[in-house]
Formats: sequence, C-alpha cells, structure tokens
Amino acid sequence: MKKLIQIFALSILSASATAGWFGDDNKATNTKQDAKTYTLKLAETWPSNFPIFGDTTKNFKKLAESMSNGRLKIRIDSKNKHKSALGIFDFVKSGQYDLGHSGSYYWKGKDINTLFFTSMPFDMTATEQHAWFEYGGGQELMDKVYAKHGIKSIIGGNTGNQMGGWFQKEINSVADLQGLKMRIPGFAGEIMAEVGAKPTNIPAGELYTALDRGTIDALEWVGPSLDLRMGFHKVAPYYYTGWHEPGTELQFLINLKKYNTLPKDLQTILITSMKLAAYDMLTRSNHESAKNWASMKKNYPNIQVKTFPKPVFDALRTANDKLLKKLAAEDPLSKEIITSRHNYLKKARAWTAISEQSYLNSQSK
Amino acid sequence: MKKLIQIFALSILSASATAGWFGDDNKATNTKQDAKTYTLKLAETWPSNFPIFGDTTKNFKKLAESMSNGRLKIRIDSKNKHKSALGIFDFVKSGQYDLGHSGSYYWKGKDINTLFFTSMPFDMTATEQHAWFEYGGGQELMDKVYAKHGIKSIIGGNTGNQMGGWFQKEINSVADLQGLKMRIPGFAGEIMAEVGAKPTNIPAGELYTALDRGTIDALEWVGPSLDLRMGFHKVAPYYYTGWHEPGTELQFLINLKKYNTLPKDLQTILITSMKLAAYDMLTRSNHESAKNWASMKKNYPNIQVKTFPKPVFDALRTANDKLLKKLAAEDPLSKEIITSRHNYLKKARAWTAISEQSYLNSQSK
Repeated sequence: MKKLIQIFALSILSASATAGWFGDDNKATNTKQDAKTYTLKLAETWPSNFPIFGDTTKNFKKLAESMSNGRLKIRIDSKNKHKSALGIFDFVKSGQYDLGHSGSYYWKGKDINTLFFTSMPFDMTATEQHAWFEYGGGQELMDKVYAKHGIKSIIGGNTGNQMGGWFQKEINSVADLQGLKMRIPGFAGEIMAEVGAKPTNIPAGELYTALDRGTIDALEWVGPSLDLRMGFHKVAPYYYTGWHEPGTELQFLINLKKYNTLPKDLQTILITSMKLAAYDMLTRSNHESAKNWASMKKNYPNIQVKTFPKPVFDALRTANDKLLKKLAAEDPLSKEIITSRHNYLKKARAWTAISEQSYLNSQSK
Repeated sequence: MKKLIQIFALSILSASATAGWFGDDNKATNTKQDAKTYTLKLAETWPSNFPIFGDTTKNFKKLAESMSNGRLKIRIDSKNKHKSALGIFDFVKSGQYDLGHSGSYYWKGKDINTLFFTSMPFDMTATEQHAWFEYGGGQELMDKVYAKHGIKSIIGGNTGNQMGGWFQKEINSVADLQGLKMRIPGFAGEIMAEVGAKPTNIPAGELYTALDRGTIDALEWVGPSLDLRMGFHKVAPYYYTGWHEPGTELQFLINLKKYNTLPKDLQTILITSMKLAAYDMLTRSNHESAKNWASMKKNYPNIQVKTFPKPVFDALRTANDKLLKKLAAEDPLSKEIITSRHNYLKKARAWTAISEQSYLNSQSK
C-alpha cells in the first residue's frame, strides 16, 4: 500500500456515483441550535439484559444521547415491559413507540417482502450483505417495502454466520432427514419440511430438556456467541456448520412521522448511532463466538463439528429455489428483491472466492 | 432466531465485561451548549479525489459537521496541498495538523510498534482484526504505542483482503522466486527478500510501463477496487491471491492535546464519525472490488487467478516467523503486541473455520 502515496502523478477517476449514507442533505450551517429535548421510546424484541442484541440498543442510546448532549433521550422498553416481543412492527407503525429493534423477517406474515432483509439461506455473508445494503440497492429496496408502513428500517447488528445446529445423530444423506424432529423456525423450517424433516417449535426454556430426552433430534439456535449459555453442547455431540442464516442482520425501526419532526442534526445523530451500533454488533458477535467456541472445545473436547454432505445441500438448495420461485411469482416486489439479491450475491461471491475464501483456505492447508 | 424472543424464561448472564467504545464517561446532561465553533485541520496521505480512501475522510467530515450542526468544521488537506504524503504522523504529533488519515505501518521507521496496526502477513482478516481492535485488546495496545507521541489512533477504513499481485509468469516453486524482480514494499518486501526475491520500488506512475516492458516481473497493488484503473490486467496474465495484507486497516490520527480541548459531545461526535466512516470503507471496498472484478473478467477473460503452492507459502511463513521473532526479541512492547495478535488470531480463526470458511467452501462445491 505504500505505493499509494506515489500516485499523484496519475490521473485518478473520481469516485463511483453510488454513495453510502452520510447524512441527508444535511447542510452544516451552525444555525441557531434547537435546544428542545426529544424523548424517543424504543421497544425491543429482546428481554432485559439480553446479551449482544440488547447491548446494541444500549450502545445506540449511549451514542445518541452523548452526541446530542442530552437533546435526544432514548427510553428502551424490553419485552419484560411491553410484553409483546413480536409487536414491535405494529408499535412503530402506529406510533405507540417511536423506535424499534427487532428482526425484519419476523414481519413476513404482515408483509411478505420484509422477509428478505435479515438473512436468506445459501445467500450473502454479513459483509457481502452490508455491501448490498449500502451500495448495491438493498437499502433502497428496504425503504420501498417499509415506506408503505410509515417506517424506516436501518441495519441493526449482525450475528455473523449462524451454525446449522446441534444434532443427536450424523446426517449422512437426505434419507437421514426424513422425519427428523428439528426445532428450526421460519423460512429455513419450510425448506426442511420440503425435504422431509419435521420442523417443530418448542419454547426456549424447554429446549435443553427436549434435546436431552429425545423429544427432538436436533435444533438450531445462533452460534457459540449465544449457544454456550444454553448448554446444548452438553447433550448433543454433533455441531453442524451453517447454511440457513449466513449473516443475520437485525433492524432498527423508526416511525417516519416522528423522524420528520426532528431537526436535521438529530436525524443524522440518530441514524449514525444506529449504524455504528450495528457494525459494532458484528465485531462483538465475532469476538464472543471466538471466545465461547474456545471455551466449549476446551471443556467438551468431544464436540464433533460436521458439515452436511453435498447431496444434502443440493436437496436443501433445490427446495430453497423452489420456494423462492413461488414467492417471486406471487408478488412483483418480491421478484425485484429476490433478483437484486441473486445478482448481487453472484458478483460479491466471485470476489469473496478469490480474496477471503482463497486466503483462508491457503492458510488452513 | 425466532427462538430468541422466547427465552425470557431463562436466566441470562449479563454481557461480558469487555466493552467496545461508545463514548468516554460522556454523561448526557443537556448542560448549557458550548456554541463555539472548532475548526480542525486534517492532513491525508492521499492526493485529492483519491477514490475510496479519500471518500472516507469526506464521509467523516460530512458526519462530524452535520451531527455537530456546524460546531465542528473539518478542513481536509490532501497531498497536493501539504506536499508530504509521509509527513502525516509528524504533522499531528507537532500539532501542525489536528487530525490525520493515513496508514499506521508507514511510521515503523519512527516507532517500530506502529507496524502492527495495519495488517500483518498470514494474520487476521478485516473482521477478525476489528474484533481484536475493539474487544481483544488491540485498541488498548495502539493507545499505548501512540500516547507516547501525544496521538490517538482510531480505525480508519479497511481495503479488505489484498491480492498477491500481478505476475508475468507462474510461481510453481520457491525456485521461481529467486531473483524475481517484484515491486512489493514494506514488511512483505522484507519477507520476499528473505526467500530470494528482489523487491524493488518504482514510482506508481511508471509501474504499468515497467510491468509491460519487463523491467519488473511482478507487482502488488491493492485488489480490484483500485487495481482496475491502473490497467495491470492488460499487461500481466496471472493475478495471485493474497497472503501479505489480509485486511489492511487505515488510521485516523488525533492530536491528543487538541482533542482534550473539545467539549465531551464533540469528542464523541468526532470518534463516532471516524468509526462509522471506517466501517463503511470496508463495505465500500468490498462493493468496488466485486464490481471491478466482474468488469475485469468480462473484458479480459484470460486473466488467470492463481494461488501460490503450499511450499511457497511455507517458505514465506518461515521467513515471516523469523522476522517477527527478531522484532519480538528487540523490544518488549513489540513482543507484547505480536503475542496479543498471535493469540487472538488463533481463537478468531478457529471460529472463522467453522463459520464463514466452512460455509463458503460448502457453497462453492
């Protein structure tokens, strides 16, 4: 890189027309300061003191309050308080809350097009998807979907690549998936059902016992960052690598009417605080996963990390393609988003292949 | 992830003691606003309108000025103006400039310990290194190194994994490196010399011609994000994957004395703006690389992507280890930083191996 300092001799093209978000026509004019205090109420899907996810909203609050010198006050209500983990979208849409922190794919029953802004199976990694959101048209598509509901959605923090889950027995073929009782919700659950598994839902507090006693054969949760405290590694020997949520991005929700009442400087402070808290969550998730995986391996050296064999992936991918095709046929905006993701993934992955993937593989030989 | 909303029944441990930066004891008190305007001068290593790197300082400026409603004014001087690309460290140390944007490893001649905060060969990827900086002790070590010089250094944007460079002939063995004239500067150049290559330095404006005419046999630059406009793909057939800069992080420099004169809210605005601009640069670099690589492949389908064979990597790694061992023996703080990176890499890579690496490999089969 030292070379870069020498290139003033070269004629350099100016930057691409595509630009990320760095404030919306927010001229810095040092106009008379609006000294008014704005209190914004945020409802989050998570219970109080939920690690990592809950820290992301606390970090957002810290940044917004200190950068505004107290002109913004953020009041966070956790699940314990508002009692409706899956009520966040409606809370923000109706204006009962000004802000939310949740996951876009929870709202697919209300608007199918919210499904595509968290993570999709066999799709982009966290950093690939960040590039899609910020420079590949993803944010514009998300705006299109959420504007209808009077909401703005902003990236809300990434878990990193999620693990495929804990299994009591090895999966050597598609036949091994037949009748497999697995706790795996959402779109990935639909794919599993398509290939013959029996996706089930079980309350989180009963999962450990269900896996231990054989009520279920397998389950997926997140990854070492949050799996460690659940204790699944004590009762299931196989830890499968992931395919269904390669880079799960949470979301901040903003009531647009409320947003438009804020002075420009506070709008920029609000969104900047959300974005930095979001990027930091990926950094933190990677740290916690690395730390917790080291601890799991140390204390439970018999954990066996497995990857599905190719025919299993092929069957899952075929089911995924079939379900996506169905969604695309049902709604033109779904089709537009699926196509945008597909085309971006193709380009982004070709670069990942010759950069990080190639590097990692050359180092692990 | 749907499951996460159900776990309020579980007792959850509170978050790890390790915390990222979200403001320094910056109580939001809505105290009387300090209406004073602070003009901060920033010197950057890059020439005017340098793509991506230069956009990072412009994005930082936009955020800082709009969030402070004009109370912060950032004046950016590029290389064209201050005439000293490698003078940034001294500018900020002396207070001639308040801020800088450059690369930490440029200062190894002034303080060898600045070498370790950009990217090291065979070391962490961009996201692994972010985790080290923010949660693995990296920022604290960088503070220790820079505080001596009255400077604070903050992450300044990542290029992503850099390519190994453009070669006129294939490298099939260590013998092929003997006498190879390659433009590769810095620590990586020292490693190349150690295995028998002849690293040379050539002004950027002459590189294309030197590679075309055989004055040099190979060169490395960055990756598709910045290589495309240099045109090397028109004159060299082999594009090697990277090993020497797996996640190059630029830096923002802040004169500490000046920093301490700012009100708390502006301090938080300053650092938040830097960090968001920095994270965004990785996102942008990945986007530009993906886009440019697609364009290079389309117009020059004969470009051959190659990876060094294992014996070549082994020789380079042995040379790298030898040089690091020498550095560690010469300075206790160097030893501390090298050890911290080494231990963190080990943990972080074990997680990368079962998450992104495994996912990417399963998808490319």
